[in-house]
Amino acid sequence: MPTTALRLVDEAGQTRIEVIDQRALPHELVWETLASSEEVTSAISEMHVRGAPLIGVAAAFGVCFAAREACSTSSPEVELERRCEMLRNARPTAVNLDWAVRRVQRRLASVAPAQWVSVALREARAVMSEDVEQCRQIGRQGLPLIEAMARKKGGGRVNILTHCNAGWLACVDFGTATSPIYQAHDQGIDLHVWVDETRPRNQGAKLTAWELGQHGVPHTVVADNTGGHLMQHGLVDLCIVGSDRVTRSGDVANKIGTYLKALAAHDNDVPFYVAFPSTTIDWDLRDGVREIPIERRDASEVSTIDGWHEGRRLTVQVTPQGTPAVNYGFDVTPARLVTGLICERGTCPASEEGLLSLFPERS
Amino acid sequence: MPTTALRLVDEAGQTRIEVIDQRALPHELVWETLASSEEVTSAISEMHVRGAPLIGVAAAFGVCFAAREACSTSSPEVELERRCEMLRNARPTAVNLDWAVRRVQRRLASVAPAQWVSVALREARAVMSEDVEQCRQIGRQGLPLIEAMARKKGGGRVNILTHCNAGWLACVDFGTATSPIYQAHDQGIDLHVWVDETRPRNQGAKLTAWELGQHGVPHTVVADNTGGHLMQHGLVDLCIVGSDRVTRSGDVANKIGTYLKALAAHDNDVPFYVAFPSTTIDWDLRDGVREIPIERRDASEVSTIDGWHEGRRLTVQVTPQGTPAVNYGFDVTPARLVTGLICERGTCPASEEGLLSLFPERS
Repeated sequence: MPTTALRLVDEAGQTRIEVIDQRALPHELVWETLASSEEVTSAISEMHVRGAPLIGVAAAFGVCFAAREACSTSSPEVELERRCEMLRNARPTAVNLDWAVRRVQRRLASVAPAQWVSVALREARAVMSEDVEQCRQIGRQGLPLIEAMARKKGGGRVNILTHCNAGWLACVDFGTATSPIYQAHDQGIDLHVWVDETRPRNQGAKLTAWELGQHGVPHTVVADNTGGHLMQHGLVDLCIVGSDRVTRSGDVANKIGTYLKALAAHDNDVPFYVAFPSTTIDWDLRDGVREIPIERRDASEVSTIDGWHEGRRLTVQVTPQGTPAVNYGFDVTPARLVTGLICERGTCPASEEGLLSLFPERS
Repeated sequence: MPTTALRLVDEAGQTRIEVIDQRALPHELVWETLASSEEVTSAISEMHVRGAPLIGVAAAFGVCFAAREACSTSSPEVELERRCEMLRNARPTAVNLDWAVRRVQRRLASVAPAQWVSVALREARAVMSEDVEQCRQIGRQGLPLIEAMARKKGGGRVNILTHCNAGWLACVDFGTATSPIYQAHDQGIDLHVWVDETRPRNQGAKLTAWELGQHGVPHTVVADNTGGHLMQHGLVDLCIVGSDRVTRSGDVANKIGTYLKALAAHDNDVPFYVAFPSTTIDWDLRDGVREIPIERRDASEVSTIDGWHEGRRLTVQVTPQGTPAVNYGFDVTPARLVTGLICERGTCPASEEGLLSLFPERS
């Protein structure tokens, strides 16, 4: 059983990373080696690697490879910038991607190309270990919310709904939304997770269900349409989801459909929490619905579904041939529907005041 | 191209019905013959035949077959009741099913078994022709809502979101939610339909997309998660859905996920209409969320998806082997989220007063 979604291999000075090709889960566990900036870019854009934090870590190592590739060319600075731009553009929504690439790239600005690889590698390792630590801290900060619900229910089972995959497969370890869940489960709190299938790519049905199963956390997969009914009937005690981008005002971009669950939670007085590392916060944005760019992915993800049939992974067509489909990857949940934000520094209301109470240096 | 979802065949006095086996759409058009009450029961319970109005019509003919089967037994009354009960229990949510079976059965109460078949057949034909006429009228009543939106948009394209299939495939002809859409399209109003995929059975992606395509109505399939985002960005002008049961107070049971779309419509000031024949109204119920029984279907509909691959219909597994799943078929949208009800007698607010204004005999 793997315990991390990305590992660093450094043999004979030829650094590379290994990642789980998440398209093959849950039926096959395939490790894939990435050793060039092109390979990292396509692993991100084609979603072998996915989840905002993991994308950031993979991209940081992508800059290491870009540095290695660029420093042997005649114009290293130009080549480095070109490759870093390619990495930054691999996916449009996740703010961590841009952040991680720029962070490593910035380190190289004042360093001679001969030192680029070692400096970039040190910085990318730092990005990775900070991510692991942040996820651990997110769990520590979110745990009291689950403990309080368990107390409120007199030790009765706590039912948590989550959408998409914000688990360790989306990070390097622990996950964001799942980190408090794992910590609560490990402490012996009786809990159960409703896992939204998360069409069109089914990250819930495929990845979150697999992760929770590996960890022994009780869970049930439901169609994305189901959460409202569950909440109307008192079957959900709290929701925890991850995020791909959080605005200064507490608006939350996350996998398409998150907004619908937040509306249902609000309508049924179910607490709705969003867990993320602080690198997910875009301090420049205020109005999430208007300002966060939403990725439109290929329509074939909607018109087809892939799964397993007689031991083979294959894709079936669900719509009539030629039917138009559109595929928005994310939506934005306004802060007014979010009960609280959970990040490595603590929990806070979903508002500018709330976020600034944890990050006073951003005032 | 078929124009009805059910047709009556009467050769040499051996009446039978032919229905489209809707599980094979959109890739195959398979007509299936039903000639016994058992065949009708299993066609309903296994969803070869689906949609509340169509279920009612099929069940009415099921009573004809039950009468034919029962009148040759030693205790016809007992046998008829047993078979009618089997029909009534084929699906738990649709009120039309119970209504149609009881309506035909009631006709037989005062008639000698020798007359049962001809009396039942006459009544079932009446159920069918009333259904067609009701759907036509629903279209006529709902059309002004689309016309008004087209005027408001100065002739610009009207975008309508629908969930599941409440088209002619769910009825005998015209459909309920689609009836105003077809009539508006036929009048030359520029409109476009957002078709919710409607997991787990994908009636939107498979059936509504196919129906609209056959009729030439512009449409786009989206994952069920998408409607909220579309509404936040002004891409939906109105929603029209069908219903499986409407309470006296205007609460609406419909395909699971309808409630989430109604919440999003309410949050974005998008009008949300529900179209149904008056047989869908359950005058005995007031609190839909508490009182309407919700069918729980087999979990395999969630853990697998069927579609077409290289010309074959096959089922792929999307969750890890052994992952628990639950499958609620319907949810209830409270009347407060419904802008208006559309039935064959007119449109009205979603409230007891509204419904009684159209059905004063129910006061």
